[in-house]
Amino acid sequence: MSILELLDYTGVAVFAATGALSASRKQLDLIGFLFLAAATGIGGGTFRDVVLGATPVFWVVNPTYLIVCLAAALVVFVGAHRIESRYRLLLWLDAMGMSAYCVMGAAKGFVATGSPTVAITTGVLTASFGGILRDLLANEPSVLLRPEIYITAALIGAAAFTAATVAGVPLPAASAIGAGVAFAVRGGALLFAWRFPVYKPRPGRHPDDVM
Amino acid sequence: MSILELLDYTGVAVFAATGALSASRKQLDLIGFLFLAAATGIGGGTFRDVVLGATPVFWVVNPTYLIVCLAAALVVFVGAHRIESRYRLLLWLDAMGMSAYCVMGAAKGFVATGSPTVAITTGVLTASFGGILRDLLANEPSVLLRPEIYITAALIGAAAFTAATVAGVPLPAASAIGAGVAFAVRGGALLFAWRFPVYKPRPGRHPDDVM
Amino acid sequence: MSILELLDYTGVAVFAATGALSASRKQLDLIGFLFLAAATGIGGGTFRDVVLGATPVFWVVNPTYLIVCLAAALVVFVGAHRIESRYRLLLWLDAMGMSAYCVMGAAKGFVATGSPTVAITTGVLTASFGGILRDLLANEPSVLLRPEIYITAALIGAAAFTAATVAGVPLPAASAIGAGVAFAVRGGALLFAWRFPVYKPRPGRHPDDVM
Repeated sequence: MSILELLDYTGVAVFAATGALSASRKQLDLIGFLFLAAATGIGGGTFRDVVLGATPVFWVVNPTYLIVCLAAALVVFVGAHRIESRYRLLLWLDAMGMSAYCVMGAAKGFVATGSPTVAITTGVLTASFGGILRDLLANEPSVLLRPEIYITAALIGAAAFTAATVAGVPLPAASAIGAGVAFAVRGGALLFAWRFPVYKPRPGRHPDDVM
Repeated sequence: MSILELLDYTGVAVFAATGALSASRKQLDLIGFLFLAAATGIGGGTFRDVVLGATPVFWVVNPTYLIVCLAAALVVFVGAHRIESRYRLLLWLDAMGMSAYCVMGAAKGFVATGSPTVAITTGVLTASFGGILRDLLANEPSVLLRPEIYITAALIGAAAFTAATVAGVPLPAASAIGAGVAFAVRGGALLFAWRFPVYKPRPGRHPDDVM
Repeated sequence: MSILELLDYTGVAVFAATGALSASRKQLDLIGFLFLAAATGIGGGTFRDVVLGATPVFWVVNPTYLIVCLAAALVVFVGAHRIESRYRLLLWLDAMGMSAYCVMGAAKGFVATGSPTVAITTGVLTASFGGILRDLLANEPSVLLRPEIYITAALIGAAAFTAATVAGVPLPAASAIGAGVAFAVRGGALLFAWRFPVYKPRPGRHPDDVM
């Protein structure tokens, strides 16, 4: 198995584990663990493949990804109390998965279209859609609405990978650059609680307006 | 029309009716009924076809499915008070639809890939995604988060169908087995309020953790 | 650039702006603005292309649509207080976008399938899915659940365009008819607070029933 595949399966497993942890917080039964684990683990890549027209999607072509999600869900179902007591560790593993995913998504998008804009978009989607889907399905506050630097880290990592690729840097080096940048940004956010400037109401704004 | 087609249209109609009933609980106008009916009736099959790459999806190829959803929505809009007074009947019809759907989804997934894992996954998705979408759009507690044996019944039925097919059982018999098992499990859950063991917090777990 | 393309980009930009305004109400950071702007601006067309099998989807083929969403998000992030003080204007621009979108969605669906039913469905989806996705992701009351004549206007416009097309009216005229009807219905709803009859509970209905 290549390093990239190993990273890929690791990313799926870690994302799936975060989905199963949501199920544990909601005290669901095993099927709920499986469902949320799969949605989180393969949701982003599924969305990426669908918009790129790369169907059947990756987990239909290679069901091993489903087995990985299943295994992650079972591990969490049996031992969630242990994993959650290692919550920080999971956050860091999740950061690793995100870093690998924003690069893989960007790479697949760039190969398919040659467009940097599309590559960055598919990179961000692949890294973030699974978590957004998890929060939607589990009815938890969406990662999209929390003032955390997570999707931003995926964006910066995907942009770094794409810029390096466009500049002619070979794939392995560009991947290392993109994943490294994404992990550094996310890691800094975890260590130092970095925040991005948020929109501040100004005179003339009507917060009660409903679109 | 073959038995399978008849079952198929019945499944779509019943699922669509449950979507329209959500619209009636939310006291929406007719378009809300149509929208939720269609989302619930064809959502699962749409997701199945998209991930399998079987596009255009089934209701684009055969718009009769849309007409069926439209008709179901109109019937509920005009007579929801009657249908809801037959709520138990609807639950049993929904169980029939789910039983047929987990088999059809599994059959389509198995034919497309030959993978039992994919077949079971597409079976569960086809049977459950429409209802999950309905609850998301109607902002109601998701079937995924309720301690009901519903998705589990679809999983068991899809697994039974797939196992029988792999074992060489001809399609009609395998379909009857899968649908029968799914219906028996769901029916038992409705009659005897069966529940699956849910995740129980243990020492060391931090319920306040937010992923 | 043709009139149709211009309308198309305008529609994307206006829908994207409504997504960014949701982000401003949630006081998100810039990435939240970009994400909600893109989801709202291109969500409907993405869904349309996916169910029709027209993949890679339009914004993968032509990333300019992503640039337009990005620009709209930046404009709102910098000047939301100005835009929101022009809330009515935005509602009318949104009505224009919806009018153009229900026609484009219906046209694409009709060309792909020749089915009026599919054409009307893809018209409604293209015009409404982006807004539904925006409200789901931003955790705001869904346009689907509000008693507003919005999706209904898209349905009527798509139906008018399709009827005209079936009747042999050439594309430009049919488009003008469809968009005009949709805009008139939505405009009337904005000006006179038109409402459609909603479902009213009747004796025998059990509002506590949970599907």
